[in-house]
Amino acid sequence: MTQPIRIERTTNPKPRPKASELGFGKYFTDHMFILDYDAGLGWHDARIVPYQPITLDPAAKVFHYGQTIFEGLKAYRTEEGKIVLFRPDMNMKRLNRSNDRLSIPAVDEALGLEALRQLVQVDQDWIPDAPETSLYVRPFVISTEAALGVSPSLQYKFIIIMSPVGSYYSEGIKPVSIYVESDYVRAVAGGVGHVKTAGNYAAGLKAQEGATAQGCAQVLWLDGVHRKYVEEVGSMNVFFRLGDKIVTPALTGSLLPGITRDSVIHLLRHWGLEVEERLVTIDELVEAQKDGSLKEIFGTGTAAVISPVGSLYWKGEKLTIGNGSTGEVSARVYETMTGIQTGRLEDPFGWRVSVE
Amino acid sequence: MTQPIRIERTTNPKPRPKASELGFGKYFTDHMFILDYDAGLGWHDARIVPYQPITLDPAAKVFHYGQTIFEGLKAYRTEEGKIVLFRPDMNMKRLNRSNDRLSIPAVDEALGLEALRQLVQVDQDWIPDAPETSLYVRPFVISTEAALGVSPSLQYKFIIIMSPVGSYYSEGIKPVSIYVESDYVRAVAGGVGHVKTAGNYAAGLKAQEGATAQGCAQVLWLDGVHRKYVEEVGSMNVFFRLGDKIVTPALTGSLLPGITRDSVIHLLRHWGLEVEERLVTIDELVEAQKDGSLKEIFGTGTAAVISPVGSLYWKGEKLTIGNGSTGEVSARVYETMTGIQTGRLEDPFGWRVSVE
Ligand SMILES: Cc1ncc(COP(=O)(O)O)c(C=O)c1O
Ligand SMILES: Cc1ncc(COP(=O)(O)O)c(C=O)c1O
Repeated sequence: MTQPIRIERTTNPKPRPKASELGFGKYFTDHMFILDYDAGLGWHDARIVPYQPITLDPAAKVFHYGQTIFEGLKAYRTEEGKIVLFRPDMNMKRLNRSNDRLSIPAVDEALGLEALRQLVQVDQDWIPDAPETSLYVRPFVISTEAALGVSPSLQYKFIIIMSPVGSYYSEGIKPVSIYVESDYVRAVAGGVGHVKTAGNYAAGLKAQEGATAQGCAQVLWLDGVHRKYVEEVGSMNVFFRLGDKIVTPALTGSLLPGITRDSVIHLLRHWGLEVEERLVTIDELVEAQKDGSLKEIFGTGTAAVISPVGSLYWKGEKLTIGNGSTGEVSARVYETMTGIQTGRLEDPFGWRVSVE
Repeated sequence: MTQPIRIERTTNPKPRPKASELGFGKYFTDHMFILDYDAGLGWHDARIVPYQPITLDPAAKVFHYGQTIFEGLKAYRTEEGKIVLFRPDMNMKRLNRSNDRLSIPAVDEALGLEALRQLVQVDQDWIPDAPETSLYVRPFVISTEAALGVSPSLQYKFIIIMSPVGSYYSEGIKPVSIYVESDYVRAVAGGVGHVKTAGNYAAGLKAQEGATAQGCAQVLWLDGVHRKYVEEVGSMNVFFRLGDKIVTPALTGSLLPGITRDSVIHLLRHWGLEVEERLVTIDELVEAQKDGSLKEIFGTGTAAVISPVGSLYWKGEKLTIGNGSTGEVSARVYETMTGIQTGRLEDPFGWRVSVE
């Protein structure tokens, strides 16, 4: 049986930020969930407590050896006032795949889901209701044992914090420019690119700096072995509309199996579109752009849901995708995904999970 | 001019562990160094304070995006009672190369060196003096801004903690068995394997588990692209005695430029031995082992200094190196390196830096 969750409510609630000030990940709700792990004891002491600082020994392993993983998902308030999460079971499964790769003990998925539900309920007044806002939920695990020496930690904390986030597209969904990265590498099969661990993101900052300097919003990552297969765009999976087909990079072990990616594949197939998961080279894309068969590119991820790509910078050349504006499929996927997530549309796949 | 360092001494010194109980990285000294960074202000408020916990917001970037780097070096008490550090300038230079790769603002190297000197002086009674013990010094930088969103932190802490460490070889220097890893990959050029950032170490734990299960002490890492070039052994650089030559993998961008590696190369050349820095395949090693020309293998790193390899496990086969005991060059390098480090031998290269 799943252990009970103790709840200690804040006596000092914080002021709520205005919807227009939200941004992403700047404000945090009144409460957080904590679960401790100690070797021998296992995961224990599940609790929801007032949002508060964490106090760690400076030798805590997370600071030195990076044994840490995270997840990201969103809670929405539907038009009828119901609170829903989008496919949280997928996040808990991926969290444990990440844990396994990082030698962190598995978390009871039922307990994790119950913690998500209860925490969202406790802080439900923090779910913003302006259009396209949501409550971003961040579960993460850190290794806390105070000991130098490269070995799995004997202590961990599983924590969930939440942040009300604004609309990603305050001026409507808009395509971005993407820099095709040829020097830096995000991940390689045999490494940790297929799981959500902190080090992957720090390693990508330098390439992002370069992209920004070129006036681009994000990086398109190529594989680290052949330096030609397209993998991800920024921290999103990527889809291409090539002729009549939708193509997305196969899960070769160096890219993250995104939950939005999985959902979009289901949706497209449900619509009767042909979707291929396979290797895609940058050369194939460049050729298809030149002969006009590359109609659309879009990224998929929890934060932006869908991010249309208006142009690619590759070897000093700017390649406009389609006519540079949001493509037909991108727009339809965006409308449908956000519609399902927020309860505006029917949910044929049973993806919404009510927290009540 | 380098900023002054404020010193606040503990009023509550901890008991000293016995030399026999030291181990590695389990005990920490009475004081630590802290330097803060805030965007706009730069690095400021250099201070030595009682060893104490760090309090961070649960949204601190280090927990989520892994923007963090570290260094490792040792302080020794020489037979005449002088306190020395080994090539600390090299550590400060590498620290800033790591900072650069991880988009962390550079630390003033002169201030870093001064901090090392003053901290070691303040806690000099913690330097153990039993043979082959030392004070391990761990400078590190963590990103502390409380904000989700993948971008460089606007706040950091540069911290130095210290741990008295026992002899690595309590029963004398002894060769270890090494598992040649063919599934997991440590790093790839274009990534972060050439710098000291936390994520590299977490990513290696799983392979280490596999090595342990095979009765091996460490993993021999192959490159992530061709899966055949030898890169490092555990968290050490690696050297091979092949016929008359000493060979060590070239710094191709996926391995760490070890300070012990650099020192050993200097030392071997000083002795008139031929040292090659080049690509080395596992097949070349297997062949050389079979024809008898692979005389010795040893790892190099700050913690163990020299770690002789007695056997390699590769494709289900155990390959004994030399006669399985510590080789001639390995032993001579170990004696000389530890002799220079601890002041037992002359220091022809000017590597020892006195802290007084
Ligand atoms: C590297 C990376 N790729 C892809 C994604 C998209 O995954 P999801 O759709 O589950 O949000 C994410 C995270 O959100 C990510 O961090
Ligand atoms: C991955 C890795 N390789 C090699 C080394 C050896 O470097 P050094 O000789 O500077 O200690 C270290 C660290 O000590 C390391 O972490």
